[in-house]
Amino acid sequence: MSEQRSAQDYLAARRSDILRSLEAISGERGAELERALPGGKELVDRIFEYASRGKMLRGSLVYLGAELFGRAGAPGLAETAAAMEFFQAGLLIHDDIMDRDERRRGAPSVHAAYTEGASAAGAGDPSHLGESLAICAGDVCFFEALRLLSAVAVGVGASGSSGGAAAASLIALCGSELSVVGLAQMADCRFGELPAEPTEAEILAMYRGKTARYSFSMPLAVGAALAGRDDTRAAIFAIGDLAGLAFQLRDDEIGLYGDSERTGKVAGSDIRENKKTLWRARLFARAGEEDRRRLLTLYGNRDIDSLDVDHVRKLTAALGVRSEIAQWRDTMIEEAKGLVAALDASDESARAILVDLVEWLVNRKY
Amino acid sequence: MSEQRSAQDYLAARRSDILRSLEAISGERGAELERALPGGKELVDRIFEYASRGKMLRGSLVYLGAELFGRAGAPGLAETAAAMEFFQAGLLIHDDIMDRDERRRGAPSVHAAYTEGASAAGAGDPSHLGESLAICAGDVCFFEALRLLSAVAVGVGASGSSGGAAAASLIALCGSELSVVGLAQMADCRFGELPAEPTEAEILAMYRGKTARYSFSMPLAVGAALAGRDDTRAAIFAIGDLAGLAFQLRDDEIGLYGDSERTGKVAGSDIRENKKTLWRARLFARAGEEDRRRLLTLYGNRDIDSLDVDHVRKLTAALGVRSEIAQWRDTMIEEAKGLVAALDASDESARAILVDLVEWLVNRKY
Repeated sequence: MSEQRSAQDYLAARRSDILRSLEAISGERGAELERALPGGKELVDRIFEYASRGKMLRGSLVYLGAELFGRAGAPGLAETAAAMEFFQAGLLIHDDIMDRDERRRGAPSVHAAYTEGASAAGAGDPSHLGESLAICAGDVCFFEALRLLSAVAVGVGASGSSGGAAAASLIALCGSELSVVGLAQMADCRFGELPAEPTEAEILAMYRGKTARYSFSMPLAVGAALAGRDDTRAAIFAIGDLAGLAFQLRDDEIGLYGDSERTGKVAGSDIRENKKTLWRARLFARAGEEDRRRLLTLYGNRDIDSLDVDHVRKLTAALGVRSEIAQWRDTMIEEAKGLVAALDASDESARAILVDLVEWLVNRKY
Repeated sequence: MSEQRSAQDYLAARRSDILRSLEAISGERGAELERALPGGKELVDRIFEYASRGKMLRGSLVYLGAELFGRAGAPGLAETAAAMEFFQAGLLIHDDIMDRDERRRGAPSVHAAYTEGASAAGAGDPSHLGESLAICAGDVCFFEALRLLSAVAVGVGASGSSGGAAAASLIALCGSELSVVGLAQMADCRFGELPAEPTEAEILAMYRGKTARYSFSMPLAVGAALAGRDDTRAAIFAIGDLAGLAFQLRDDEIGLYGDSERTGKVAGSDIRENKKTLWRARLFARAGEEDRRRLLTLYGNRDIDSLDVDHVRKLTAALGVRSEIAQWRDTMIEEAKGLVAALDASDESARAILVDLVEWLVNRKY
């Protein structure tokens, strides 16, 4: 990109800002909670370490959302960005339990670490205690996020205009969108564990809830609201919908075609896990009777080899699914860029970063 | 009591107010979430049904907290009371998973109901899917509570004075206190699953976090804050601490001496489950070597009979634990009543209900 700052540089810079906030908040809260109950500091330290493993995309988008409208210094920004990362940490701690993931970004997941501790302390059922403690830890993340969101009541009020009503609208937006994520996660759990085949419409609704609205639209709209620009919410959600779906379709593609050395996952792991992606749904819809029968022996089969993975990859391309989804994604990205260009924003540098971000998210290598 | 309304009548009247709010909110939100994702209405209906089984003590105390200071009509009261019940529903849904409780108030717990549905739909691991869906359902309760708390930003702002700062303080109070509950629940899980014996101080800290601060102090203080009386927070927390601890000690007593026909539990179930109550800790501390050895064969033993239960009951009385705790509880109640009398409240009828409530909570029959 020819812009001054690339989206990646921007995210890296914001990540270190957020990390600093989280560290300060955690230090303070660890001491406060320890006074209320032994174990408070250990819990807060653990949550901080877990949250600090992430890219902090959502927190960064809160800042970008405010900068777009020329309010880089809006009151409450740092607390709200930190709140987004606490929400995300809580959701991931719970997701790890549901997905039976023992590791997250190169270190043990929270329930796995608690299970190990429970085992060492002589628990009768260490994995039950480990999961119970992790459910609580995730809950505490949500409550700490709520506590941080209180800054919004002061922040948006202080920025003038409608005050309390604007703050209320921002908090209601977060609660409402987070409920949609919870619902999308339930759909994802059901897709994974039940034999029924979800329709494309059901998969798209899940993608929208879990990725597009939550990871893109909500944090950007929250930033815009802190900048006193609630009027841009619908435009931002339209951008987030397109960018988020395009991102998820790229993510699925990387899951199918990605080089295992780059992705850090076994090649074809989505096939082995029978992940109900949109790619899979379309492949099954396109395949003839014989191909379908073969695919059914491969999806969900942990013993497939690289030739099997190659077969699925080639079939997906041969049936036109790959080119069709790539084209769809490109169309969405062009449309999203058009909407970013048309957005009634005042900071051109922030706008350029958003455009670069949208392109980078869907063109990243695999 | 000689007051116009008894605490029980008050709670019953408030419960039906809150039930009506919850019903209206659920109808609206079910439709909204269903538009975002299929399953939204089913989830909200399920949460409403689950929440409606409760006594709604916390929501009622929000009202009482505002009435104490003459602000029965404070803006945001209904939403905040409903938010407390959503928080409570989310915590209980998660608690049921941790405690492996298949039923709650005469009907299946949320994870048990989901497990049954998962089994019928052909899930490979129905109880894992059931628990995953229930973790999400609990999370959604928290997010819906957050959404409802947004009313506070308008409510407290509208009541004049400090506006945004008062709303922020109220929201921060909820987040902070809920984190303490989460931490107390973690302590409770560890007490139950680990062989280590918690000290009396650890048990009391857990009681304070899980019962006193959360179930009494927080909702009353939230109501007072909505009435613009944040200055009474410390006094309210002192009352809640005493009343909540006394309540919990009574609860433990009912668990030990309660008539199974009245409690709905098997006599001595706390002994069978080896529940690490303060009564148990004190009994073990008082018992001589021989008694201790016998007690260790009874606590955590599911095969004990009514003679064994009777032995523990008699020993607890004989060693003076029963009379000592009863006296301690009476002292706390007297002190709590003194603090209620000294509270700078303006509504004498609300004050009388609070006194009656404190007495009723700790003198209820078993």
